[in-house]
Amino acid sequence: MPNTPEVSSLTLNRLSIYLRSLRQLEEERVATISSQELAHRFHLSATQIRKDLAQFGEFGIRGVGYDVAQLALRLSRLLGLERRHAIVICGIGNLGRALAEYWGFNHGPFAVVAGVDQDPRKIGKRVGTFVIAAPDEIERLVRETGAEIGVLTVPPSAARESYLALVDAGIRAVLNFTLQRLEPRPGVRVKNVDLRINLEELAFHLGG
Amino acid sequence: MPNTPEVSSLTLNRLSIYLRSLRQLEEERVATISSQELAHRFHLSATQIRKDLAQFGEFGIRGVGYDVAQLALRLSRLLGLERRHAIVICGIGNLGRALAEYWGFNHGPFAVVAGVDQDPRKIGKRVGTFVIAAPDEIERLVRETGAEIGVLTVPPSAARESYLALVDAGIRAVLNFTLQRLEPRPGVRVKNVDLRINLEELAFHLGG
Repeated sequence: MPNTPEVSSLTLNRLSIYLRSLRQLEEERVATISSQELAHRFHLSATQIRKDLAQFGEFGIRGVGYDVAQLALRLSRLLGLERRHAIVICGIGNLGRALAEYWGFNHGPFAVVAGVDQDPRKIGKRVGTFVIAAPDEIERLVRETGAEIGVLTVPPSAARESYLALVDAGIRAVLNFTLQRLEPRPGVRVKNVDLRINLEELAFHLGG
Repeated sequence: MPNTPEVSSLTLNRLSIYLRSLRQLEEERVATISSQELAHRFHLSATQIRKDLAQFGEFGIRGVGYDVAQLALRLSRLLGLERRHAIVICGIGNLGRALAEYWGFNHGPFAVVAGVDQDPRKIGKRVGTFVIAAPDEIERLVRETGAEIGVLTVPPSAARESYLALVDAGIRAVLNFTLQRLEPRPGVRVKNVDLRINLEELAFHLGG
């Protein structure tokens, strides 16, 4: 991991949101913006913006605000988005297939370049931009495609085995949709995605 | 919306995480826990836990900590999880189908009870626990099933129309996977889900 000061998930997710807001401002040809305006426009907190950015150096100019294009570029570099990150998907069920073709996973620095499934009826079939391979091909696929991110969309019972296969193949970043906890491995970053948390947020607003 | 003090998404998502941690402690038959222990055990912040809970009343006992079962129940009530919330899905492509059968959407208070798609070849086919209906059936489906949450997994070009159909049918909480911004409607809560943010977090750790 070349670039790992301890920055929390929450901070990183806010930086992503700032970057998206700045991209929208760039499209609208806004050249500079203050933290207050940025906060107001995108329903963020100005104090939080200043605090988050302060962790990574000096960004704004007092009394003028941020240079939109420059801040977008610096955040993009900081987030590691100025170079390609190829993705391999383990498990081409409905969710794996949806992610293989998902705009957000095939845009900018990201591209889904390979996928494996243990179902012999699926192997050899085309999904998105690749042909589904057998699980024992993972190491070759990672080597040949330079994939760095593994996505786990296998059934929960296969989560651990697929995870270890990804790690053995040299994958150092794993997006885990299986709801199974995976054991930490040195140098490997696992991000667990639990889509239910979004429903719980909506449930709060619907009332008890 | 019966229950809407202004609580941020981030706070609500943390409450969900606390609740999951408490459920795990319940399974391990832990009866009481301090905010420090809770924080340490689940990689959270003790200060943040105390601050978040303080917004909603008095939970812990000084010197003893939290009663695990009681705090879990109170958080569950607070989040509106002590009663059923039925879900209708608009758009039964790969993602819609995956979510219809997703454990997290069919567990505890949540159940996917209906789904619509405009493809005549899909209408009448069974997915999860329901049969796919035509989009013009939404109002009847919502009325008959008591669905309160709508999930948008249609193509981006159909997002607005499907959203308005959900709102017209009486849906007040929408989970939007389309990456299209939806116009606010009075009394309707929209939660936009952008799965790419998880990749951006991993990209940071992979370095630029």
